[in-house]
Amino acid sequence: MIKKEKYSAAILVIGDEILSGRTQDTNSNYIAKEMEMIGINTNQIRVIPDEKNTIIESVNELRAKNDYLFTTGGIGPTHDDITADSIAEAFKVDLEVNIEAYDVLEKYYKKIGSEFNEVRQRMARIPKGATLIENSISAAPGFKIENVFVFAGIPKIMKSMLEDSIKHLNKGKLIHTISIKVDAVEGDIAPVLKSLNDENENIKIGSYPFFNSNNDFGVSVVIKSIDKGFLILAEEKFKNYLSKNSLNFK
Amino acid sequence: MIKKEKYSAAILVIGDEILSGRTQDTNSNYIAKEMEMIGINTNQIRVIPDEKNTIIESVNELRAKNDYLFTTGGIGPTHDDITADSIAEAFKVDLEVNIEAYDVLEKYYKKIGSEFNEVRQRMARIPKGATLIENSISAAPGFKIENVFVFAGIPKIMKSMLEDSIKHLNKGKLIHTISIKVDAVEGDIAPVLKSLNDENENIKIGSYPFFNSNNDFGVSVVIKSIDKGFLILAEEKFKNYLSKNSLNFK
Repeated sequence: MIKKEKYSAAILVIGDEILSGRTQDTNSNYIAKEMEMIGINTNQIRVIPDEKNTIIESVNELRAKNDYLFTTGGIGPTHDDITADSIAEAFKVDLEVNIEAYDVLEKYYKKIGSEFNEVRQRMARIPKGATLIENSISAAPGFKIENVFVFAGIPKIMKSMLEDSIKHLNKGKLIHTISIKVDAVEGDIAPVLKSLNDENENIKIGSYPFFNSNNDFGVSVVIKSIDKGFLILAEEKFKNYLSKNSLNFK
Repeated sequence: MIKKEKYSAAILVIGDEILSGRTQDTNSNYIAKEMEMIGINTNQIRVIPDEKNTIIESVNELRAKNDYLFTTGGIGPTHDDITADSIAEAFKVDLEVNIEAYDVLEKYYKKIGSEFNEVRQRMARIPKGATLIENSISAAPGFKIENVFVFAGIPKIMKSMLEDSIKHLNKGKLIHTISIKVDAVEGDIAPVLKSLNDENENIKIGSYPFFNSNNDFGVSVVIKSIDKGFLILAEEKFKNYLSKNSLNFK
């Protein structure tokens, strides 16, 4: 991969339990934050059901459109864990028993005194050509194939796999961010935000109103840039405007 | 719309703040749960940035593939609120000042003693042919155009808009659900889950391992069916299996 200023990622969350509302997905938020810190821009998060064709289509679309694709979920031992099968099909490669994965699993189950039975052996099936990703929690590995990283859905295990994967990622230019809380409603500051945003294409301004339960409300203004100088300039202008208009901020 | 047994929905979350990890999206989980309760199946949740072309493409794809599409985010008064513009373009209709919306907003700002300025008037711009959705929190309405429901991103406001929208939705057959917590790991129960899942196409079994911080772990087994009889039968078989194999459950 040629070194670039900016890299892009997509996150594909695989699991009926998210779509039914039974489980609140927090993995995508965790991954997105980690990416932000190393200059990788998350372009899309997509949640899909445990359905083979849907997984294949989404994987092929999102890996083509982004530098990296991270998937979570569906790599356990049960009948609804079909992510590895689907990824192999998406890449048109065989799903084969990976000797290294088999070995890791066999040792782990021996150590914890559980039987390494047929269903557990399913977790050693890895698409041909993939590299294993370490699972420091419960042994069953994730894997990386080309630009696709396949993680477990259990947050603790996903985090362990992400940690093992960071070394494979190209880092982009860091985005500098300033966040200012203003005692105002959006309608009061929208014009200045628009003019600041429009006058310099190297900065990007987001505006996020909040209402807290204790009747505290306001707007969080987030200014971002890969250029620190432009960022400081925009911050200064914005704060001058707030002071002139007697709007409190912190 | 012809009455069907099952309806499908997609949720489109629009907002850079979710993709950067700054904000944990909870709206899609809330909507998915509400849909589950009225027999509407959420097929996809997608998070995209505040970018016009991406919004247009996603809206057109997801509204064609599903009975309903719910969007959240991007309908406030600031420069990064481009959802209404994008939806109008997706439907190839004009974005016009909606007299009803203008009226509601004018009255609201008069009541709270704030100026109904130009940027606030932006929130009265609604795609031609759309129906307004009530916002009982801060007046600025959402809207419905064909099968697309456009909600605000602030959770409290989104909930108010969803409540006002439920009346427009066809309700599907309710899905009955049983959840059983088993003191086991997935590898111990995978074979019985697979055989139960395979023997009756009217039931669907999901298996979700959990690890709590106090070293409590196990598997939540979720059995679903639109037929209560099949569900009870599957539950009975599964619990018999657990008892025979001395596995605790609750």
